[in-house]
Amino acid sequence: MKILYGDISSILNDMTVLREEAGRVEKTAAEAVERIITDIKMRKDEALREYTSRFDGVELASFRVSTEAIERAVESVESSFLEALEGAKRNIVSYHEKQKRQGFVDADTKGIIRGQLIRPLHTVGVYVPGGTAAYPSSVLMNVLPAKIAGVKRIVMVTPPGKDGVNPHILAAAHIAGVDEIYSIGGAQAVAALAYGTESIPRVDKIVGPGNMYVALAKRAVFGAVNIDMIAGPSEIVVIADETGNASFIAADLLSQAEHDTNATAILITTHKELAQQVKQEVERQLQELPRADIARASIEANGAIVVVDSLQEAFAVSNEIAPEHLELHIHEPMTALADIQHAGSIFIGPYAPEPLGDYFAGPNHVLPTSGTARFFSALSVDDFVKKSSFLSYTREALEQVKDQIVILAEKEGLQAHARAISIRFEEKGGADE
Amino acid sequence: MKILYGDISSILNDMTVLREEAGRVEKTAAEAVERIITDIKMRKDEALREYTSRFDGVELASFRVSTEAIERAVESVESSFLEALEGAKRNIVSYHEKQKRQGFVDADTKGIIRGQLIRPLHTVGVYVPGGTAAYPSSVLMNVLPAKIAGVKRIVMVTPPGKDGVNPHILAAAHIAGVDEIYSIGGAQAVAALAYGTESIPRVDKIVGPGNMYVALAKRAVFGAVNIDMIAGPSEIVVIADETGNASFIAADLLSQAEHDTNATAILITTHKELAQQVKQEVERQLQELPRADIARASIEANGAIVVVDSLQEAFAVSNEIAPEHLELHIHEPMTALADIQHAGSIFIGPYAPEPLGDYFAGPNHVLPTSGTARFFSALSVDDFVKKSSFLSYTREALEQVKDQIVILAEKEGLQAHARAISIRFEEKGGADE
Repeated sequence: MKILYGDISSILNDMTVLREEAGRVEKTAAEAVERIITDIKMRKDEALREYTSRFDGVELASFRVSTEAIERAVESVESSFLEALEGAKRNIVSYHEKQKRQGFVDADTKGIIRGQLIRPLHTVGVYVPGGTAAYPSSVLMNVLPAKIAGVKRIVMVTPPGKDGVNPHILAAAHIAGVDEIYSIGGAQAVAALAYGTESIPRVDKIVGPGNMYVALAKRAVFGAVNIDMIAGPSEIVVIADETGNASFIAADLLSQAEHDTNATAILITTHKELAQQVKQEVERQLQELPRADIARASIEANGAIVVVDSLQEAFAVSNEIAPEHLELHIHEPMTALADIQHAGSIFIGPYAPEPLGDYFAGPNHVLPTSGTARFFSALSVDDFVKKSSFLSYTREALEQVKDQIVILAEKEGLQAHARAISIRFEEKGGADE
Repeated sequence: MKILYGDISSILNDMTVLREEAGRVEKTAAEAVERIITDIKMRKDEALREYTSRFDGVELASFRVSTEAIERAVESVESSFLEALEGAKRNIVSYHEKQKRQGFVDADTKGIIRGQLIRPLHTVGVYVPGGTAAYPSSVLMNVLPAKIAGVKRIVMVTPPGKDGVNPHILAAAHIAGVDEIYSIGGAQAVAALAYGTESIPRVDKIVGPGNMYVALAKRAVFGAVNIDMIAGPSEIVVIADETGNASFIAADLLSQAEHDTNATAILITTHKELAQQVKQEVERQLQELPRADIARASIEANGAIVVVDSLQEAFAVSNEIAPEHLELHIHEPMTALADIQHAGSIFIGPYAPEPLGDYFAGPNHVLPTSGTARFFSALSVDDFVKKSSFLSYTREALEQVKDQIVILAEKEGLQAHARAISIRFEEKGGADE
């Protein structure tokens, strides 16, 4: 793991290149996805059946996963796993419930009522990857905020394996309260959710991670439905001073590095000795990891330890990066919140390691990557509601402001807008009141 | 204006076709926009200067509009216009201030602190079209929510005309509190805001309406920055019973129809006589409108009056359409709020015509079009903030849940995640506490 002193521009350049690379769209893949979407839109279930046979190698009598299959899955998994999921659920629910908000009504001015309704989306689709990237924690993180928002119908899709759907995924879906599960995956599943087929309901929003084809499909159907963010590779920045524990920090850096060779793990520290210790600890711990190949490739290509002169400099570098995850291993870490301008999720002190947040503590693990923490936010209850404004004026209230509205409308050359106001005050045009 | 009885499927089909048409991307335009973006990214100001010369026919010494030019503009416009803008500003501010929200801290469990920070975006770019589509009201509607959110730097761009920038636009920008104004437009302005040039700052989010090239550019830079919705043609649905006033309703339908030949204006009524009266009133009022050509084309192609048997049926049709604007000209209209599932903005009663909302009352006029009110919302203060979660655990709090986290991490095959938890409780790994 490389150690840099002072000049961090090479790190920032490398990250920019990596992040742009991660966002690049393969033209042939994008065209293939467009074809699949058009085909699903036209031929619906028939096309869905063909793609499921071609890509997943499975012929399904029905896409719907039966209640019995879900019950069998719940019975088949270890009770300790179910208990851990229930524990995580309790924390995710109690955290996300604090995000719920109400609309408002403003009736403070005579004759005028103005308000905003905040209401749940009606139907939401949750994509859950299959195979080795089948993450039960991701089911909880995507479904529970929708549930708390009050979404009436939560539809999960996940690619079928040779032996059906992974029972741990089904158990997580059951615990999270998914209403329907369908064994479909890939761009064809996204298209089916966006436009509906005979057997798959059309949804209002599609959330959840997926491979490149899923991401391209989500991007392509955006507008026909809403989507969540398109996630890039995982990122962690650790800021540490002389209080930092090298073995903890190394373990936390590696926990992100094991995700993906494109993952980024960076330590920024004011303490030269810690830099050396963490470098050695990373080497030592790498020996013990089953996914050492991935973690090593990620650490070598994108990992770095940056030695800076002050914590203020460390915060400045971190703000420049705007990381997905940020850990603070420093004296009085809570006071640093005011120095952190851009970070998806902030882990404070030595006993809040990033995997605590990934699995259990309650904040959402769907977070903005690739520097988008400057303007995007973690998945939340807000992502599953929509707002409608409303407005009521009496004749008297409108009369008081009619001239001003007419001036503005006429200045924009929109006479019919002006007319819609003035016609209400012409002699013949009085309402029957 | 056509009148339909009972079967409304033809209306819904027509709207679907119109909405898909509006969302279609012209391939050659998209490619031209991609080239402009790449060019601005590489050659920055030099390219920006070339495109401004080529597309706007203007050679600029500096893109920045000077303080003097803005002051001159404010002095040159009518005081009645400035007063009307100030009146609108007061209402927009008082409405949007109710949307402001706070983060939270949850410290209810011993040893555990969890929270969510809600903070303003740092820099926002507002696109304001030039020429005949120069709408001062749009400046207020896009800038004021950002201002209320606490955005530190609000940068406006607007294409230069032969005589500089429209003074009414400059006056609105001044009143709204824009920090900097640049005379650039088109895809090149969007690219400059997304990536920054020597003279244009890089922003976190770009909002504001624009022509097809602007919309394509916003779509293309999404991810590098955040963007607002891509707006389709304007839409109004009016629901009326026997209390409806035909001349008011006709005027309101025409106020949307005059926007664009692709605009949609639909009346849904339980009252056959009203249907006939509104049809006649639309004809009569069309005679008097300067933009009658546009309004007539829109009414003939996309306008419709639908006669239904009951208000419940009217609500169902409206919910199917999910209109941008919905007016309720019915008995006790406020109670209908519970029946309206999907609508961007709801105008209640005969004295809340849509232009009152467009210009003056306070709710935002940037609204979801093309049926996206099912899942998108009006522009609001929420669009100019980002959220960061944070988390702190003590050693004791983490120890209580460590086994459950390890079970979940191992089930997902992520041993380094499990290790980041367990290493904190090994004999040698204790933190210096």
